[in-house]
Amino acid sequence: MKSAILCIGTEITSGLVKDANASFLSQNLTRVGLSPKYILFAPDHAESILKALDFYLDDEEIQCILITGGLGPTEDDLTREILSDKFRKKLVFIPREWDKIVQFYHRLRNTIPPENNKKQAYIPEGSALLENPIGTAPGFMIQFQNKKIFAVPGVPKETEFFWPLIEERLPSNDSQFYRTEMVKICGIGESQFGTDIQSLLNHLPQSLHPAYLPFFGEVWFYLYSYRKDPELINQAETIIKKIKTNWRQYLFSDWGENLEEACGNLLRKLGLTVATAESCTGGFLSHRLTNIPGSSHYFNRGYIVYSNQAKSEDLDVSSTLITTHGAVSEEVARALAEGVRKKTGADLGIGITGIAGPDGSSQEKPVGLVYIALANQQSTVVKKQLFSGDRLTIKTLSTQTALTMLYFHLQEKIPHGQ
Amino acid sequence: MKSAILCIGTEITSGLVKDANASFLSQNLTRVGLSPKYILFAPDHAESILKALDFYLDDEEIQCILITGGLGPTEDDLTREILSDKFRKKLVFIPREWDKIVQFYHRLRNTIPPENNKKQAYIPEGSALLENPIGTAPGFMIQFQNKKIFAVPGVPKETEFFWPLIEERLPSNDSQFYRTEMVKICGIGESQFGTDIQSLLNHLPQSLHPAYLPFFGEVWFYLYSYRKDPELINQAETIIKKIKTNWRQYLFSDWGENLEEACGNLLRKLGLTVATAESCTGGFLSHRLTNIPGSSHYFNRGYIVYSNQAKSEDLDVSSTLITTHGAVSEEVARALAEGVRKKTGADLGIGITGIAGPDGSSQEKPVGLVYIALANQQSTVVKKQLFSGDRLTIKTLSTQTALTMLYFHLQEKIPHGQ
Repeated sequence: MKSAILCIGTEITSGLVKDANASFLSQNLTRVGLSPKYILFAPDHAESILKALDFYLDDEEIQCILITGGLGPTEDDLTREILSDKFRKKLVFIPREWDKIVQFYHRLRNTIPPENNKKQAYIPEGSALLENPIGTAPGFMIQFQNKKIFAVPGVPKETEFFWPLIEERLPSNDSQFYRTEMVKICGIGESQFGTDIQSLLNHLPQSLHPAYLPFFGEVWFYLYSYRKDPELINQAETIIKKIKTNWRQYLFSDWGENLEEACGNLLRKLGLTVATAESCTGGFLSHRLTNIPGSSHYFNRGYIVYSNQAKSEDLDVSSTLITTHGAVSEEVARALAEGVRKKTGADLGIGITGIAGPDGSSQEKPVGLVYIALANQQSTVVKKQLFSGDRLTIKTLSTQTALTMLYFHLQEKIPHGQ
Repeated sequence: MKSAILCIGTEITSGLVKDANASFLSQNLTRVGLSPKYILFAPDHAESILKALDFYLDDEEIQCILITGGLGPTEDDLTREILSDKFRKKLVFIPREWDKIVQFYHRLRNTIPPENNKKQAYIPEGSALLENPIGTAPGFMIQFQNKKIFAVPGVPKETEFFWPLIEERLPSNDSQFYRTEMVKICGIGESQFGTDIQSLLNHLPQSLHPAYLPFFGEVWFYLYSYRKDPELINQAETIIKKIKTNWRQYLFSDWGENLEEACGNLLRKLGLTVATAESCTGGFLSHRLTNIPGSSHYFNRGYIVYSNQAKSEDLDVSSTLITTHGAVSEEVARALAEGVRKKTGADLGIGITGIAGPDGSSQEKPVGLVYIALANQQSTVVKKQLFSGDRLTIKTLSTQTALTMLYFHLQEKIPHGQ
């Protein structure tokens, strides 16, 4: 048994507005074991909507259809009318809903509703009314053969409001999409990781699917199944456990946290602090570190030293060093990391210098060349990287490398088995 | 004639990852007059993908299908194989593509590619190869009857890269969705702006639709139509022109640039520099400023002063001031902006201090309270804001306010009519 989502609105198919509802609903459907088979966006156009609906109705596997949008007061809002036609259930006027719309207008705008709002007080005969206390359009649910069809307004905060009302009416299910534990790794490419773990996956049962998701130098690996079968879950867990043991040196999360969160947890556990000196990343690293609630426990200072003068004045990087090796060099990255550690008294210092492009490159120093240094009391390591991509990609990959270096440095300090 | 988008990946149907590609492609297709009839997301599951493909192939109106994802090296990547089967075109090995993959691995990782990468060097026989210089998987285009089917990798940066290659191969069209010029404004709410411009929109022709898109304190306003009719375009342009004149004090772009880009353009035009002192935004403001190529012309230094000690040591904010008024106060915001200006010699200084939450609030200073200061040689202005939302939202809104203040400060210095 599967669900499917249909979002109606030309503002989305034409790219004017980014979707929020499908993403919200798919997360929640997945959480309750009814992961959508499809998500489909259709414009405010009757024939297109009807075809999309038929695509879902013809699919035996789909037993629960969530429709958002097209319940507004204007003439391009067609959901109510299309469902009424399709299932031959005439639209019936609900006086109580109309009263609520009148009150809504009175309370919020001190006026009476325009005539076109009246159509929002109609729902298809025999459908279950889903009341909407935060907007004018109620939702409703139609049972058609073995399928449940929900229609709710497309305003994101209203769609969110309706979720619990949908959830309690969902068909109960035993065969379903099931996601096992996941792992997130970094420091190894998707394809290398895929090759490395191939032997573990050679004899997977047909209904257990591996999924790899690369994300800026991270790989998120899942095993999932469309059946919630204890035997399958058991097999999946065994494999994941082996991956967690054998690829320990690349693993940074087994529950979905991001890299800055994983670093933050280790810094707090170890009682250590970190300070940053950023050139080409321009503050992106400190932004990521401070996105984590409570980051003030381990981060209290960062410097964006874009110019050479700033590097020297703020962090004591010698101007001779810069002249000799260039601002983008192993030596300057090292001096930044050590300088910021010394200046701030933090336990760890990170220095980043590179060429984010599109300008500023030379033959020897191309766009994408970045040096990332991590200094502690004893020593400093510097990593040279050559990234490709646009400016933001290079900034992102540089911060990923810095966080990866930080994470594995901290991880080594944690006693085994913790 | 219409287009349609098919995005493949269980990570999206299950809600793990938010879509970026469909939104990017639909915007671009709409811009060139081929607005998609549908956008469909399907999981990495052969039967589901095939059904989705058939849904599009059976639709006479759809003559251009864009498929993203499923071209990776791992066994859950199925697009290549499914299209090969469907159109009965066997997969052929392209030695040159394999060489490129080998070089790619050598250059970036100094290693040879794993065996499973080899499948990325295959494309369906007779399809047009679309080369990919930024990743390992090439794209390709299949002509089937009157339809063009494009398959490109789903990594967002790569999908974006392929757009121009797709665009030049699109079928030509005349009946289409048309979007007129847009305006982007800030410093006024969506509903206030909507009310203000209502009189201009009272006698709009039926086929000209206004659209408001609020975005973190900005409003993007469009007029669009489903017909590319010179009369309609003319009417739309007249209205947009009036908005640009009458709401000049809120306008920051009439072609789609973002706020940091608009600020950067003015800073360069005026030959001014800016420096930042950030507490609660943790480097996000400098990150946004330095996302713009060439930002080193006007930005060379920023400080993240999370702790009180950092505020005093780096930017000379007196500790008495902090004790008397608190770190989150108008006085400290002002001292940060003035301090960073003085310290760096920049023409303008920006200081931000606030409570991004979820912790750190008190009765008098709730989560979301943020002070933003802008200092120039003559004077300093401070804005007090009370934002709601999560940590990242509060950081985002704080940087939006800072950039809005900066933009309108700079705008005032530009002689009228330029």
